[in-house]
Amino acid sequence: MRTIYVIGIGAGDAEQLTVQAVNAIRQVDVFFVLDKGEAKAELVRLREELLRQYADRPGHRVVHGRDPDRDRSAERYGEAVQDWRSRRADVCERLVLDELADGQVGAFLVWGDPALYDGTIGIVGDIVRRGRVELDWHVVPGISSISALAARHRIGLNQVGGAVQVTTGRRLQTELPDGVDDVVVMLDAHAAFTRLADPDLQIYWGAYVGTPDEILVSGRLGEVSDQIYAARTQAYERKGWIMDSYLLRRRAPAAGGDGT
Amino acid sequence: MRTIYVIGIGAGDAEQLTVQAVNAIRQVDVFFVLDKGEAKAELVRLREELLRQYADRPGHRVVHGRDPDRDRSAERYGEAVQDWRSRRADVCERLVLDELADGQVGAFLVWGDPALYDGTIGIVGDIVRRGRVELDWHVVPGISSISALAARHRIGLNQVGGAVQVTTGRRLQTELPDGVDDVVVMLDAHAAFTRLADPDLQIYWGAYVGTPDEILVSGRLGEVSDQIYAARTQAYERKGWIMDSYLLRRRAPAAGGDGT
Repeated sequence: MRTIYVIGIGAGDAEQLTVQAVNAIRQVDVFFVLDKGEAKAELVRLREELLRQYADRPGHRVVHGRDPDRDRSAERYGEAVQDWRSRRADVCERLVLDELADGQVGAFLVWGDPALYDGTIGIVGDIVRRGRVELDWHVVPGISSISALAARHRIGLNQVGGAVQVTTGRRLQTELPDGVDDVVVMLDAHAAFTRLADPDLQIYWGAYVGTPDEILVSGRLGEVSDQIYAARTQAYERKGWIMDSYLLRRRAPAAGGDGT
Repeated sequence: MRTIYVIGIGAGDAEQLTVQAVNAIRQVDVFFVLDKGEAKAELVRLREELLRQYADRPGHRVVHGRDPDRDRSAERYGEAVQDWRSRRADVCERLVLDELADGQVGAFLVWGDPALYDGTIGIVGDIVRRGRVELDWHVVPGISSISALAARHRIGLNQVGGAVQVTTGRRLQTELPDGVDDVVVMLDAHAAFTRLADPDLQIYWGAYVGTPDEILVSGRLGEVSDQIYAARTQAYERKGWIMDSYLLRRRAPAAGGDGT
């Protein structure tokens, strides 16, 4: 029997790891890393920094796999992601079989929380269902980029008794979705906030939250939209990648405040 | 100048505190606790246990305030909560003025993540806006009960590229909200999942997640709804309180899996 941990490592701040994550990392013999190419080399370095700080099991090592390319031009987003995930599962299964001995502990480290917009839980689940390798596996939750964003802006994500929707830039339309006054947008490569019709929405935006490069902007969308657009364009040009998210808030008439 | 930390302490597992939360706790002179009465005395004990484990600043102390009652019979939920919040801010402002000296560090510990269905951020913000006491204040994000639930079930909260809505039992109707296939329900005192019309929804339910009393049930809603109802009724009778949440999932036709 081999053991696998899927460990959430927070949004980029080494102090945002939980004690549980640190304790799990200390048991790990083999860390599996899928390389995504040069653009995010800085993220790879950040992760290595975490390991230097916390991984102390004698003889532990880091094994790299090649993250398969995803067909971003595909018409059918869901199918393209499914195909990509299946090929990632192939790569990961092969890594586990080749590199992890019986009785050893392996880990995948995931930015943020493994439960949000990350495929690793699904991949390990697929490997288990294929049945070629017996795994005892566990998920260690992490601080999501959403929690980190809200903490830095010192806001709640919901208004009194209200709902919050977490969605993607791709899904965001010109209005907020029905029935919610608070919408968190992730994976927004195309500045979808510029499409929104209502200039009176509040936006709480953050990039590289929790890292030294953190940028925070908040305000009335009509007033700060251009500023956010410029900030994210400049940051992308300077660093070659961006990791940002934001909350859009329509002030609920009855509420007026955050919380509970 | 006084300093206040609002610290997320996770969903009930002392190992789910982040390193940042532990480091913040170590700087604290005064922990402010609002007592909610006997029913949740167990939560108070859990929190005291955390402090025994992590709080080590010489002379640190815990100061209790009386959490004002909330009018749960009120017609207008939002207003009742607003009124309650304002009275809580009164109590907290008084505690800070009376018990925290200039230059000292105070803290409010919040279960889960302070950004979700908790009023503490709003209360401290209100105190700052009132301007009677100058505060340097910070929010330390925590593992939400949602992240903890997903980790224990080893599932993602979203399906491929899909949205997730976080809502309350009070708001849940007989169908899932429009436009989302994944809905997380919190603060559900009345087993709102029993109202849902579609027996083919998947439910991933958990109570007291991360504690020794943890209960997890998942499956097709039509098959496990009664079992969950019975489990939560029995648990409530045995312990006098319940802290549970769940994910409702409609299998998206194109997707079939969790993640990304």
